[in-house]
Amino acid sequence: MSGPHEAGARIAARPLEARAFAPFGEVIEAAGPPDRIINGGLCGRWHDLARLDFGPGGRAGVSVFRAEPRALPLKLDLLERHPLGSQACIPMTAHPFLVVVAPDEGGAPGRPQAFVTAPGQGVNYRRGVWHAVLTPLHPPGLFAVIDRIAGADDANLEEFRPRTPWIILPPGGSD
Amino acid sequence: MSGPHEAGARIAARPLEARAFAPFGEVIEAAGPPDRIINGGLCGRWHDLARLDFGPGGRAGVSVFRAEPRALPLKLDLLERHPLGSQACIPMTAHPFLVVVAPDEGGAPGRPQAFVTAPGQGVNYRRGVWHAVLTPLHPPGLFAVIDRIAGADDANLEEFRPRTPWIILPPGGSD
Repeated sequence: MSGPHEAGARIAARPLEARAFAPFGEVIEAAGPPDRIINGGLCGRWHDLARLDFGPGGRAGVSVFRAEPRALPLKLDLLERHPLGSQACIPMTAHPFLVVVAPDEGGAPGRPQAFVTAPGQGVNYRRGVWHAVLTPLHPPGLFAVIDRIAGADDANLEEFRPRTPWIILPPGGSD
Repeated sequence: MSGPHEAGARIAARPLEARAFAPFGEVIEAAGPPDRIINGGLCGRWHDLARLDFGPGGRAGVSVFRAEPRALPLKLDLLERHPLGSQACIPMTAHPFLVVVAPDEGGAPGRPQAFVTAPGQGVNYRRGVWHAVLTPLHPPGLFAVIDRIAGADDANLEEFRPRTPWIILPPGGSD
């Protein structure tokens, strides 16, 4: 049975793929042929790949995040969501990182899904989507994040801690 | 003498540095201590690093650009600018890339300045700043670009071709 009170589940990560991620947001990547060829043929543009949403009273900002690398299997004891805006995470290296998302079930996350990116893949979490914090698998863990900028008292973060951590396994599912 | 009719000048690239770049826009990087520590101490956030500007009738978008790598010295025969919005370029690899910008002198670029990035540095060109097209120095030449999204007939590109190309030299200035 899935639901907010299921905890300690073991979840195998899968390679990140746009269709599987679609309920949660967009994969930001150069997939298929470019939408436009620009700069005299020297550059392809994959155009406008993410549904950005900065909510009422917010504006777009670019920040840099540097996160501690983690290893799989991973004990996942925290999910969060941003009720007022989307959040796009662009890796500034070619290293894969872990993406964990979950459907909402009555105000708490249901069973998470885990993905490992390929080089050249970023993600955009749609507004309100439960997700794990940035989880690089290699140093330096450097990302550009495009998200809502608003006042200091902006209530744009909700956190959820399961009673027992989920265990995220590497692709293939072995410990 | 500098000016729009100076051409064929030899310009040595310098390491990209926020102060030197400030007249043209922002360097997007994790410089100095983070503005905030988040995610239980596991992540630093360098907050809201770029003056984004999507102009009247535009909105923020994230696109992916994949450009052919080039080598230095480089013949630079084209600069462009976007009169209706800023453009931020975030490398999706740790490879350095070339950044060339120029002041405006009466509607045409003055003498360009050239910079080579360090790993972990992106840039934001302020609205209307003359710049070279994306110029990676290594494959795969993959970038996330945050810029103005508007209608198909949006007049957000001006180009300038010097009579004689500028020659961009590697840092140190030797051919």
